Amino acid sequence: MVRLTDNDYGKSGVRLTKVVREGATQSLYEMKVDIRLGGDFERIYTQADNSLCIPTDTMKNTVYALARRESFDSPEAFGNILAAHFVESFAQVAWAEAAIEQTLWERISVDGAPHPYAFSGAGPARRTSLARRERDGAGVRIRGGIAGLEVIKTTGSRFSGFLVDEFTTLRETEDRILATSIDATWDFAARGADYNGAFETALRVIPRAFALHDSHSVQETIFAMGEALLEEAPALSSVSFSLPNRHRLAVNLEPFRMTNANDIFVPTSEPFGLIAGTVARE
Amino acid sequence: MVRLTDNDYGKSGVRLTKVVREGATQSLYEMKVDIRLGGDFERIYTQADNSLCIPTDTMKNTVYALARRESFDSPEAFGNILAAHFVESFAQVAWAEAAIEQTLWERISVDGAPHPYAFSGAGPARRTSLARRERDGAGVRIRGGIAGLEVIKTTGSRFSGFLVDEFTTLRETEDRILATSIDATWDFAARGADYNGAFETALRVIPRAFALHDSHSVQETIFAMGEALLEEAPALSSVSFSLPNRHRLAVNLEPFRMTNANDIFVPTSEPFGLIAGTVARE
Amino acid sequence: MVRLTDNDYGKSGVRLTKVVREGATQSLYEMKVDIRLGGDFERIYTQADNSLCIPTDTMKNTVYALARRESFDSPEAFGNILAAHFVESFAQVAWAEAAIEQTLWERISVDGAPHPYAFSGAGPARRTSLARRERDGAGVRIRGGIAGLEVIKTTGSRFSGFLVDEFTTLRETEDRILATSIDATWDFAARGADYNGAFETALRVIPRAFALHDSHSVQETIFAMGEALLEEAPALSSVSFSLPNRHRLAVNLEPFRMTNANDIFVPTSEPFGLIAGTVARE
Amino acid sequence: MVRLTDNDYGKSGVRLTKVVREGATQSLYEMKVDIRLGGDFERIYTQADNSLCIPTDTMKNTVYALARRESFDSPEAFGNILAAHFVESFAQVAWAEAAIEQTLWERISVDGAPHPYAFSGAGPARRTSLARRERDGAGVRIRGGIAGLEVIKTTGSRFSGFLVDEFTTLRETEDRILATSIDATWDFAARGADYNGAFETALRVIPRAFALHDSHSVQETIFAMGEALLEEAPALSSVSFSLPNRHRLAVNLEPFRMTNANDIFVPTSEPFGLIAGTVARE
Repeated sequence: MVRLTDNDYGKSGVRLTKVVREGATQSLYEMKVDIRLGGDFERIYTQADNSLCIPTDTMKNTVYALARRESFDSPEAFGNILAAHFVESFAQVAWAEAAIEQTLWERISVDGAPHPYAFSGAGPARRTSLARRERDGAGVRIRGGIAGLEVIKTTGSRFSGFLVDEFTTLRETEDRILATSIDATWDFAARGADYNGAFETALRVIPRAFALHDSHSVQETIFAMGEALLEEAPALSSVSFSLPNRHRLAVNLEPFRMTNANDIFVPTSEPFGLIAGTVARE
Repeated sequence: MVRLTDNDYGKSGVRLTKVVREGATQSLYEMKVDIRLGGDFERIYTQADNSLCIPTDTMKNTVYALARRESFDSPEAFGNILAAHFVESFAQVAWAEAAIEQTLWERISVDGAPHPYAFSGAGPARRTSLARRERDGAGVRIRGGIAGLEVIKTTGSRFSGFLVDEFTTLRETEDRILATSIDATWDFAARGADYNGAFETALRVIPRAFALHDSHSVQETIFAMGEALLEEAPALSSVSFSLPNRHRLAVNLEPFRMTNANDIFVPTSEPFGLIAGTVARE
Repeated sequence: MVRLTDNDYGKSGVRLTKVVREGATQSLYEMKVDIRLGGDFERIYTQADNSLCIPTDTMKNTVYALARRESFDSPEAFGNILAAHFVESFAQVAWAEAAIEQTLWERISVDGAPHPYAFSGAGPARRTSLARRERDGAGVRIRGGIAGLEVIKTTGSRFSGFLVDEFTTLRETEDRILATSIDATWDFAARGADYNGAFETALRVIPRAFALHDSHSVQETIFAMGEALLEEAPALSSVSFSLPNRHRLAVNLEPFRMTNANDIFVPTSEPFGLIAGTVARE
Repeated sequence: MVRLTDNDYGKSGVRLTKVVREGATQSLYEMKVDIRLGGDFERIYTQADNSLCIPTDTMKNTVYALARRESFDSPEAFGNILAAHFVESFAQVAWAEAAIEQTLWERISVDGAPHPYAFSGAGPARRTSLARRERDGAGVRIRGGIAGLEVIKTTGSRFSGFLVDEFTTLRETEDRILATSIDATWDFAARGADYNGAFETALRVIPRAFALHDSHSVQETIFAMGEALLEEAPALSSVSFSLPNRHRLAVNLEPFRMTNANDIFVPTSEPFGLIAGTVARE
């Protein structure tokens, strides 16, 4: 005999554009929303009984309808609206999550002035958020974040003093390129925090800490960035990082009777070190 | 004051080809390995002390060296060798994981006979495994799996009787296309199971169950596939599925004064329902 | 003063599923269609005059409407129908192209028998076609093809005797792995050829030639595959190949006091050699 | 009998990082280089004669060696160096191309000042160039360009007055969102032009023209951007654009008893209109 031990489901990749007009100035939110629900859904799997099944197509419609009906100015706030809707509307929903990835646009500069309704893509980085609501009790969790923030420094990074075993060939270096794509997510110390302020602080502080920190490892850089962010963003209680080490390998030019003056490298995408860490207030 | 509350790290995307020769016949393993370690690494982050840091470059070398030194005939077995190596070699390692994705090749058929050393790509699906070792006690967990197994059926699927609310526009249907890309992972009831036998059984039973099941929902299809697999693979204790619903939407041909005889559809990639479930023996 | 010197436009990525039912057996065509038109469109660019502009949205609708109205059994035939439609319907269209990429599905085997309506993905390879019609005269060109046919051989390939200059470090080898992803397109000697027969022949002959050929270079393998295909497919007048060399690099195991018995390699995706050639009947 | 009618080959995806240090300030070039050669290579294909074959591995080495040995300050200049090297070094090379894609980095701002050696990714756009040299005569062609420049405007775009046929369902609109990802390449009127100046002008003028132009079609926007660029960049003789129309489709909210105040849209990636045009000086 077998049984269903775990289950959840949802709609992923719901893409939304919302235009907000204030006088001659227009603003733009572009988001990709993933909805996920857990609860009393076992009979859908085991009894062909769909009576408690909220179709994922309805989840998609709900995203568009609530985007129209509700006011919000951040993905955290919109995600919270969505998660609350599902928990409050349906008794069978034990928990609901809304994960949002927001495309970043910046106003096109025309002769020094920001244009009222034209935008260009502001980098590969996306703003992220995750809102989760539980049916019972005070279960609300909202996280903010950023994904894919590409950074590189051509010096100010070293890696030495590491463990050496029979399989170690890496040489110690006191001067290397450090390149990564920063994924960070943060927890807020209290509900109703200034989500946009936190994001703007992160977008300013994290790259600055990356630039200024004299790095002995990707790990140490993570801690330095976390420390700097928590210092400048009092609304945050913790921040988690996940950083791939996008290695730049020095090219051996000796076969061509050249020296490599630490200036010619191969950027690699695989394999990559992947370093994670969470920094929290004590 | 802040502190480091969580951390782990590893090397991802270590690509490996191993050729095994037996007489005139050659076999081929192609794998992508991700190594991940947890343990006593806090000082790397907070003290610039790398003395306990196993470089991720060493992890990469270890994959190649152990691939050469050890014999194995499955990704589960190789992952177990790798995870055991890190836990057993380094006191600071509390746990180690090796996640492996194996590319599937099949021998090229030449006039009906399998060629001894030439292969063609056997579909978008990959074989997967995850081996995890804990330092203390009997902590070994090995999972097998498959990812990206694309299947579609043009009938034998319906979706009706679902909950209808203010945001529901989906119509009930008794005959729809069902298309998905199956990700499944399974647990073994005992160590040292026949990993290859389990994979081959899954590759045979899962698509068959998908084909034969008269589906009332993706959820029900998951349960049917899980039930069928556990029945035919006694070595498995449970199987988890995650299935995107790759919707095929009927095209409205009325503006062209045509009927759609349930034969013209738009395949969509986004948004998609994403349905998960685990089936286990009681 | 400036002027418009070249222009064309179209609709890309029109995804289509067509189900064909014959008794209890159902067949499935899944295609991605790109339509492209050239002609008398200059005023759209320079005069804000859209009166001759066929909207790309209409091109999309046309794909679905003609998929419903017309019978066809190959992407070549459907592409020809589409290209002819645009040239014949609109005087301003000087030429029309329909490029089609067909997903390959194979029937799921249930206890040895092909299932009547359930399919699994038949590999990463896609069938391709390009149909082009010119307004004036007999201008019809139809090409068939395959893209992304992954193949690998673990021996039977060498590379030596090549030019050596000041920047050469590659060593000659008499035994290497040869891996590639074959893109091939072919021309038909006459209109109305057996497009499906040609594709099936290519799918059988190209991998076989890859397997059997004792290769001195990717270039020589291209010629061998072209020669074999033209020999077995009399309907074809020429075939063009483009092959990336997906290098497998032997890992240096000497630092670990191991020899590499030509069995441990790193599969790489970048950089890659890219070799092209066309073989035609004299 | 068959023969080889066309052939060429090269190395693609050669990734390069070059660091240039001037005092305390460091600059960074990151490029992906594709080399392509045509010439007297037929015997490689047909005679297993590799004596005139320049290995693609050597091409890769050449990229790194010349990056070290030569000074350059633009991808156009480096591509020209590379293409010239192959034509001048090898009599069998009839033509050589170097296509380069440069990643765009901008200095991290630290308290308002640009950091001397730390950078963040400057958007999804990449700078591109193509240099081609012919063996005989004055054959040099150098193109500059940009790829993947994402832009969107929430008004100032309309599409009406287009041709209507039996398959047209698109409605005329006087106010729509226009979103695209701009690919542009340009020709220089003379050799040795100011490649960097041209790129900077394009990066300023193209988005500005996109923003300011009152668009009646993507086609008209192309012409407007080309006209603006040629006016401000006298070194350029022509510019070619290829623009996907990244449609934002208004969501039908009527089933939810809501109106769509032209503010809720679905961003789509497929299908997409693809519009091309070249603007040149008369």
